[in-house]
Amino acid sequence: MEDNIQKIKSMIRDIPNFPKEGILFRDITTALKDAQTLKLTVDEIYEQFKDEKIDYIAGIESRGFIYGMPLAYKLNCGFIPIRKPKKLPAEVISQEYDLEYGTDKIEIHKDALKKGDRVLIVDDLLATGGTAEAAVKLVKQIAEPIGIAFVIELEDLKGREKLPNDIKIVSLVKY
Amino acid sequence: MEDNIQKIKSMIRDIPNFPKEGILFRDITTALKDAQTLKLTVDEIYEQFKDEKIDYIAGIESRGFIYGMPLAYKLNCGFIPIRKPKKLPAEVISQEYDLEYGTDKIEIHKDALKKGDRVLIVDDLLATGGTAEAAVKLVKQIAEPIGIAFVIELEDLKGREKLPNDIKIVSLVKY
Repeated sequence: MEDNIQKIKSMIRDIPNFPKEGILFRDITTALKDAQTLKLTVDEIYEQFKDEKIDYIAGIESRGFIYGMPLAYKLNCGFIPIRKPKKLPAEVISQEYDLEYGTDKIEIHKDALKKGDRVLIVDDLLATGGTAEAAVKLVKQIAEPIGIAFVIELEDLKGREKLPNDIKIVSLVKY
Repeated sequence: MEDNIQKIKSMIRDIPNFPKEGILFRDITTALKDAQTLKLTVDEIYEQFKDEKIDYIAGIESRGFIYGMPLAYKLNCGFIPIRKPKKLPAEVISQEYDLEYGTDKIEIHKDALKKGDRVLIVDDLLATGGTAEAAVKLVKQIAEPIGIAFVIELEDLKGREKLPNDIKIVSLVKY
């Protein structure tokens, strides 16, 4: 397992100064391009959740779609897209979160979940945790978030502290 | 197979007047939410391409990520995101296409593909074909688009006519 994580980490590319000066961007596209690494990444998250009772994978737009869908396929779950405003066509519920300047929000369809549904949230990256925290709250408005999985965690940014400690938090590659 | 397609079609929801007045939106979120339909959809596309030699799945942002990734996983291919401008962190190549008013473009990383790579493009919907045509041209700048797969095709909009006839075009559900 530790070997697999090292392999995945070695396939993530560092891009300095993206999206702005001073930010070191962890680029997953190189880890997606390599078929073996793609499979390893999905399988490693799968292993961590395969014994949980999960009804739905909720993927956060848009890189959460990337990892969430093969996981939903493999876990035999339905998939629910968590989207930015105005993307979903039917009635939505939404959850606001703070940005550096101002606020943003994420949405799911109001009829996507019902009370008691057990949901695993998926995104590529845990950074400051603002979006992840909002996703947990969003799911909690109706159903039960039982876990959240990331490919990458930027530990210095302490995003994990924003997440409730009664759900299972998994990140594969830590910086 | 025809039964499977009917099952998938029955799970796609119609939303009138989205994203604007007069448009009947085919909503795939209901087909994604149902685990069995999700699996059927991916498996039906898989069946159509499982005997082709494919190096990469290229998914068009963002609903092409949704269907492209489980397909990449199942076909043992790498995955390449085709993204809107300014989303990809490294050097890109881009392809413009016309909108109703003005133009837009899509991009891939310049080093995502090399000459001779065989690429299957994936998106959720073939409508007027503008984005699909641009995706084929984008891949063709470097590599070889061998096919393109959609979950839904809106036949009246004749998007298929914009696509080259030397690649394999698959759509599961037709309206």
